[in-house]
Amino acid sequence: MASRVRDQSQAGRNGLKEKVLTLDTMNPCVRRVEYAVRGPIVQRALELEQELRQGVKKPFTEVIRANIGDAQAMGQRPITFLRQVLALCVHPSLLSSPDFPEDAKRKAERILQACGGHSLGSYSVSSGIQLIREDVAQYIERRDGGIPADPNNIFLSTGASDAIVTVLKLLVSGEGRARTGVLIPIPQYPLYSAALAELDAVQVDYYLDEERAWALDLAELRRALYQARDLCRPRALCVINPGNPTGQVQTRECIEAVIRFAFEEGLFLMADEVYQDNVYAEGSEFHSFKKVLMEMGPPYSTQQELASFHSASKGYMGECGFRGGYVEVVNMDTDVQQQMGKLMSVRLCPPVPGQALLDMVVSPPTPSDPSFAQFQAERREVLAELSAKAKLTEQVFNKVPGIHCNPVQGAMYSFPRMQLPPRAVQRAQELGLAPDMFFCLRLLEETGICVVPGSGFGQREGTYHFRMTILPPMDKLRKVLEKLSHFHTEFTREFS
Amino acid sequence: MASRVRDQSQAGRNGLKEKVLTLDTMNPCVRRVEYAVRGPIVQRALELEQELRQGVKKPFTEVIRANIGDAQAMGQRPITFLRQVLALCVHPSLLSSPDFPEDAKRKAERILQACGGHSLGSYSVSSGIQLIREDVAQYIERRDGGIPADPNNIFLSTGASDAIVTVLKLLVSGEGRARTGVLIPIPQYPLYSAALAELDAVQVDYYLDEERAWALDLAELRRALYQARDLCRPRALCVINPGNPTGQVQTRECIEAVIRFAFEEGLFLMADEVYQDNVYAEGSEFHSFKKVLMEMGPPYSTQQELASFHSASKGYMGECGFRGGYVEVVNMDTDVQQQMGKLMSVRLCPPVPGQALLDMVVSPPTPSDPSFAQFQAERREVLAELSAKAKLTEQVFNKVPGIHCNPVQGAMYSFPRMQLPPRAVQRAQELGLAPDMFFCLRLLEETGICVVPGSGFGQREGTYHFRMTILPPMDKLRKVLEKLSHFHTEFTREFS
Repeated sequence: MASRVRDQSQAGRNGLKEKVLTLDTMNPCVRRVEYAVRGPIVQRALELEQELRQGVKKPFTEVIRANIGDAQAMGQRPITFLRQVLALCVHPSLLSSPDFPEDAKRKAERILQACGGHSLGSYSVSSGIQLIREDVAQYIERRDGGIPADPNNIFLSTGASDAIVTVLKLLVSGEGRARTGVLIPIPQYPLYSAALAELDAVQVDYYLDEERAWALDLAELRRALYQARDLCRPRALCVINPGNPTGQVQTRECIEAVIRFAFEEGLFLMADEVYQDNVYAEGSEFHSFKKVLMEMGPPYSTQQELASFHSASKGYMGECGFRGGYVEVVNMDTDVQQQMGKLMSVRLCPPVPGQALLDMVVSPPTPSDPSFAQFQAERREVLAELSAKAKLTEQVFNKVPGIHCNPVQGAMYSFPRMQLPPRAVQRAQELGLAPDMFFCLRLLEETGICVVPGSGFGQREGTYHFRMTILPPMDKLRKVLEKLSHFHTEFTREFS
Repeated sequence: MASRVRDQSQAGRNGLKEKVLTLDTMNPCVRRVEYAVRGPIVQRALELEQELRQGVKKPFTEVIRANIGDAQAMGQRPITFLRQVLALCVHPSLLSSPDFPEDAKRKAERILQACGGHSLGSYSVSSGIQLIREDVAQYIERRDGGIPADPNNIFLSTGASDAIVTVLKLLVSGEGRARTGVLIPIPQYPLYSAALAELDAVQVDYYLDEERAWALDLAELRRALYQARDLCRPRALCVINPGNPTGQVQTRECIEAVIRFAFEEGLFLMADEVYQDNVYAEGSEFHSFKKVLMEMGPPYSTQQELASFHSASKGYMGECGFRGGYVEVVNMDTDVQQQMGKLMSVRLCPPVPGQALLDMVVSPPTPSDPSFAQFQAERREVLAELSAKAKLTEQVFNKVPGIHCNPVQGAMYSFPRMQLPPRAVQRAQELGLAPDMFFCLRLLEETGICVVPGSGFGQREGTYHFRMTILPPMDKLRKVLEKLSHFHTEFTREFS
């Protein structure tokens, strides 16, 4: 690194002054961060959209962003009740309008009463509006068959990501071999790898078992942990259920085994459960870690530390833009929990409209409410359609020679494995690209379809995947699947 | 630290297992974080509110939270136009309602066109909706008398806090004497000290000159920098203008001198300008660092790195709950700027309703729009009232023996200095409290008025202050000022 030129006259003379902040001098942890879901392929997709708008000729007429779980961007319509209540909260003079149902008005008034100055424009307390935390607690109780939830253990957040990073932040400490290690599944949602890189913690990979529909394998978990103990101090275990990008839904037995493992090995459990409403496969059912933990009884229920995350961005509502989410902590040390509250207070509060929206998600209309029927119908329609898309995706991909797609049991993505011809792998290496990145870039340039290479999520050496959302409208999804399959066939032919 | 009990049977036998995450094992940087604006005094205020609700007798009937710049919580009404547009964006079927003005509808349609799937519920690109970044750029150009702003240099954020922390994060590197140091004013807004503690950077204090209405003194800046160079590598200089908590508005000359200093000394400049619309004193005027920098010409305009922050939470709108904000970077290294975009992408995007609201702030109705007259009237009323409150606060405090209050030239706070009797200081020390914390806690318990002790912002050794917002409605503010003054007199008498 060149030494800085500090002498003004010299700087003036040669007209050149090295910048304070350069790639060489910036935070090296930030440099190491990678986030494939919004990485180079998405940059290129944005450029292509720009070019299309400028009238540049392409072999396609639109870019289809199947890279990110953004339902409404793909045309899913917002749930009417949610938006009615929010509009009333934003502009309370609408409360006198006859065009809004009574239950929406009651709901809006209830939320506004709980806001400072009865306005969404006030800060809330840092952990979120008390009333909404109480509603979240009741939602969790209903979900978990009556197992109690304490509003004081619930912290609202700016999407689930914010809460996940906050909990990771608490866990990070030590240097060298005492550095905190965090076990994450591979493939993973790259928020985890990005946050661990930024926090300078050690990412400890455990591989999901693709041959068994991406199941979590205890022996593999153990292998990963024991090997990591030579390098760092593993202190937390992250689980994503339903899986992202892998779409598996964990069985109750698996969850029990994971909890027992975490307890025995002294690991803080982080359960990313943002797709808890997105379960499609017959025989699959969502079990919350909290419920299983509590049902296992002492010492697990009384001692095992757990943080469970949820979000308003997924499910049937798909309200990503509002950045609503929460974390429930269980058996967390009281002092640490206070420290977590303090840390969150520095950012003042999660966005209040997102908090309000989350409230509607956790306390939707009940059968006696005028909005119930429409709400239920809209909700059911979205989930039924997602379910159909999950099946269609699996079916189409599995017809293509060289592509294998595990069942999309839940969440919003397929993560098919593909064979790539050795010559394509070689060509990619010449270009300095991961082979699946090479494939995905070519796919984008030739078809306008934007999917994320498996290398952005992690995969076993020598295997290649991509993540594609199942969110495009049914007609479009069918075309996308066919185009993609066709492209893979052509690509394979080209490099054979 | 006791060694962990890893043996399950043993854990089962004694029924006790040390937690993974404790005060001893958690992130030590997070432990060091302090954030007075939402610290212990605010916790106590919340408890008192709870007690009042439960019917506990107190010497007051309500808690007045003058601890935080939260205008709408203090009864300020939202600007009608902003909320109309937002309601239309949230619930687009209102676009056919005759109850909304045409310009609000046009504005809402324009924003929705720029959203994925024409919905606030979609993620935006991580740096914020392109159209809104363009509107921000135009706003900056108008503000700065035509000096151009590039939308590519603008990143929308989750309030200004988020952007400030992001830029600090980029700057942090090194170990020991090479550790990044950041110069911050004392008194400061404690986001800075909190973020630097969390990032394990070195906080380098420069003291504002209370005798000259909290002016920034170049000699003091130099002293702070040169002393710090023995301990760390100072790389950035933060300036808050108008000042928080100190309310001063910097002169153009002062800003020029600061820029020259930063340039000569090789410091990245961070200008916290969230109170740019809140200037009250005659003869005071807001000058943006960007404008002054550009007007100084080369080498400053072409080389000095600057990040300037703004927010939708303050000004005349006070929409804190929406968490809208932005940063403009100037002369930032292209690669670093790309890294900043990457870092922001991990959190997906700032809340889209906050982005939409920011758009209305930067492109409000113009004279030919139907909403113009009302918008202007509402805006003017809020600012005129704040101006009157600023003057009243200064006047009342300066009549009290033992209190001295500098003019509140801008922002939303007074930061008066008070004399505390030696016996009160001694009593506080016996209780393990900072003397001004002792004063503020007593004030809260006896009057219900919640203000933040100066020790939470930093102050010269042996001086005592508190920060109080000027936001309560005029009648209430008058009573609060009188009660507080009276309390100080009684407190002084009690400990004399």
